[in-house]
Amino acid sequence: MSHQVTGSGGKVLTLENMNPNVRKVEYAVRGAIVQRAVQIEKELKEGVKKPFTEVIKANIGDAHAMGQKPITFFRQVLALCAYPDLLEDNKFPEDAKQRARRILGACGGRSIGAYSASQGIECIRQDVSRYIEKRDGGIPSNPDNIYLSTGASDAIVTMLKLLVCGEGPDRTGVMISIPQYPLYSAALADLAAVQISYYLDEDRCWGLDVAELKRALSAARTHCNPRVICIINPGNPTGQVQSRKCIEDVIRFAKEEHLFLMADEVYQDNVYAEGCKFHSFKKVLFEMGPEFSSTVEMASFHSTSKCYMGECGFRSGYMEVINMDPEVKVQLTKLVSVRLCPPVTGQALLELVVNPPQPDEPSYSTFMKERTDVLAALAEKAGLTEKTFNTVPGIICNPVQGAMYTFPRITLPQRAIDTAKEEGLAPDMLYCMRLLEEEGICLVPGSGFGQREGTFHFRMTILPPTEKLKVVLQKIRDFHVRFTKQFS
Amino acid sequence: MSHQVTGSGGKVLTLENMNPNVRKVEYAVRGAIVQRAVQIEKELKEGVKKPFTEVIKANIGDAHAMGQKPITFFRQVLALCAYPDLLEDNKFPEDAKQRARRILGACGGRSIGAYSASQGIECIRQDVSRYIEKRDGGIPSNPDNIYLSTGASDAIVTMLKLLVCGEGPDRTGVMISIPQYPLYSAALADLAAVQISYYLDEDRCWGLDVAELKRALSAARTHCNPRVICIINPGNPTGQVQSRKCIEDVIRFAKEEHLFLMADEVYQDNVYAEGCKFHSFKKVLFEMGPEFSSTVEMASFHSTSKCYMGECGFRSGYMEVINMDPEVKVQLTKLVSVRLCPPVTGQALLELVVNPPQPDEPSYSTFMKERTDVLAALAEKAGLTEKTFNTVPGIICNPVQGAMYTFPRITLPQRAIDTAKEEGLAPDMLYCMRLLEEEGICLVPGSGFGQREGTFHFRMTILPPTEKLKVVLQKIRDFHVRFTKQFS
Repeated sequence: MSHQVTGSGGKVLTLENMNPNVRKVEYAVRGAIVQRAVQIEKELKEGVKKPFTEVIKANIGDAHAMGQKPITFFRQVLALCAYPDLLEDNKFPEDAKQRARRILGACGGRSIGAYSASQGIECIRQDVSRYIEKRDGGIPSNPDNIYLSTGASDAIVTMLKLLVCGEGPDRTGVMISIPQYPLYSAALADLAAVQISYYLDEDRCWGLDVAELKRALSAARTHCNPRVICIINPGNPTGQVQSRKCIEDVIRFAKEEHLFLMADEVYQDNVYAEGCKFHSFKKVLFEMGPEFSSTVEMASFHSTSKCYMGECGFRSGYMEVINMDPEVKVQLTKLVSVRLCPPVTGQALLELVVNPPQPDEPSYSTFMKERTDVLAALAEKAGLTEKTFNTVPGIICNPVQGAMYTFPRITLPQRAIDTAKEEGLAPDMLYCMRLLEEEGICLVPGSGFGQREGTFHFRMTILPPTEKLKVVLQKIRDFHVRFTKQFS
Repeated sequence: MSHQVTGSGGKVLTLENMNPNVRKVEYAVRGAIVQRAVQIEKELKEGVKKPFTEVIKANIGDAHAMGQKPITFFRQVLALCAYPDLLEDNKFPEDAKQRARRILGACGGRSIGAYSASQGIECIRQDVSRYIEKRDGGIPSNPDNIYLSTGASDAIVTMLKLLVCGEGPDRTGVMISIPQYPLYSAALADLAAVQISYYLDEDRCWGLDVAELKRALSAARTHCNPRVICIINPGNPTGQVQSRKCIEDVIRFAKEEHLFLMADEVYQDNVYAEGCKFHSFKKVLFEMGPEFSSTVEMASFHSTSKCYMGECGFRSGYMEVINMDPEVKVQLTKLVSVRLCPPVTGQALLELVVNPPQPDEPSYSTFMKERTDVLAALAEKAGLTEKTFNTVPGIICNPVQGAMYTFPRITLPQRAIDTAKEEGLAPDMLYCMRLLEEEGICLVPGSGFGQREGTFHFRMTILPPTEKLKVVLQKIRDFHVRFTKQFS
């Protein structure tokens, strides 16, 4: 077959002839509403009059942007690594210098400007393993199973890429929760994999029910080859913390249905609600006995972007793979080598997260105070958010048990739904756009994460400082009442 | 169609049922030989006796790992950004503080731990544009066309991903040079795009001939839809610097054949040979007049990993897109938003590369001295390498006009070729493996980059410090003589 050269007037690359999978990608967390928010910020700067003086971006889990301060010890070590002349400076504590020397000693030419091994610096992978072992009460972790990454997103996409194959009804199907974090749907669109949606139960605090998993799987078997189940715990955007029993159920389900398990556990330190506890999939898997721990294939993901450190800009994370076929691991290692290595400053930061100051070290008390303060403030804001929203008629809000988000359900008048339809918008997009224009608050509509037909939500981070969060909540309350009235 | 659950003994994910495109990916720069080199390093540490005391990794362009020192100014600013308390420290020069304040002022919450815009921090994109304008004698550059990236690799893969579509004989074909940098072949395998190989002319210092481009294109039209041509200039692994005429020819060819042009220009500051000059594709395109400058679609790539700074570990770079369809640009921006943003420390570093100390600033003279010293040493080593190799019978080496590599041609005795065949190795892999085992020098066999059938090469970086490089060259010389004798 031969090809005609398109008329010289036309572009080589157009919307019509570009990669169709990329066209299908959607990522609401940085979608239309955020672009409008950025525009409004520019207008404010140019002196355009608005009913508000600043845009509050509660659309994304970006702690530092919301004023959270970095952990002093982490930044001291990173400064020492960047400019090792500072190792002679007596303003830096000895434990920070010791960590910096250790990291530099593991770098080519003792510089964080050298490439590292593609899987990540070996001594950092060892420390990650020790950290996981401590977290999981001594269950062993092998540094060979640790892959450092450019944020958790990178590792998640890499893992999905390995798993996707087949054509037509044999194409790989991947189970993801609805609501979901849209990295998953975006990656599946990009890879032309089949998304299998299972719904979380809003009425039971976004609980996960095996009957629903079975329903979704059986419906999917007619048109794809289901091979993977993804779970986000603590939940994004939904903020729940799954029970130990739920995790056992999922593991049993994965084993019975021969699914690869992907556990997105980037919010593992963000648990606020009384009676809730983070249970790692790995620990539960091993406690279920060798029948499970020696068979269920799994990858768990973590990140330096969330928890108490919130260092999103460094793009750092890791995954641990369990029971992965050694031949596949060789392929995984080869695949990550094409991009050479994750950012080395991010790897250094991860080293500090998994190997923080110890009780006998000079930075310990400051570190613990900073860490505790951040997590206590988040816990307070989680409670405040739930309580305030539930006083608003037409808003129902589950407890924010963990993570950094609330995903309340909003009742919208029929006339608002009709108006949205006329404007070609999802009804909750109309709602969020109006909120942005009128109050300068940027949220993400629930339709960007998926929700049961006929229900509407938004995602809001609980990250603004407490006093500002109170104002935000009050403004949303007022707006909701006004919006409801306007469209009734 | 329904699917059977595989027998419970089998893995969910195996070599047989994993993504077949990933299996096809190859990346020789970090392939089998490097894994063996790492192993040998461990053996040396454990006290195993070898004919050498250290492994010299001349396989990868990793300047700092080879002892090159970072630029002081860059690292000072990065330390200030990481730990802004240092802004009060009078040990740091005022221009470094001013740059750090500017970068922090552009970050969310004034922290490099916040996410940036997905396309990169706006003021850095503006400075990149100004830098390009200065480089290209005033030809305008629009910050909206600049996308910061996680190293040049990231931007190259993203651009290729946008361009790939179609099935069977309609599948996108991408022209790449042979020898090539294997990121290209790896990305094409991953995307299941069709690689169209055009050969560089070794006898004319790896020159590029339009007749060869035409031959390759016309052969490819029988089985794919050629849409893209990639050029690496200065060349990797081949070290040539293309003439202005050659670049004009390529641009004319791209226009005539309706191809998207990808210009990998990450070695743009690495030009050593007298009479050679770096010509950017963008500048030449605009100087060819509006018939070209308003039609030819192009992306140019740059990186902080090479040139005089060699900061590979930071994973930073940018691309500039030209004449890209605005609707496609919206898709590109959406696609990069899924990964949130490139590492912010890398973006900060890029800001310093494009906005270095100026003559009236305190850090200028140190900066210039450091920069000049690195580039002068590279130029010296480029000459030394060519000269030495050409004294060895059976090695022919083109001048290292630019970049950081030499790609000499080696004559191998028939018996070595036969032995390699018996061992299931490419003949130049056998050669490089023996060199590694006997001399502790790690090179990459030419077969990892592609070469004309029946010819053999290796790629070596010119990065080791001059005195060490002399030893390396002497060792390779001795080895080559010995190897030739042994197999004759």
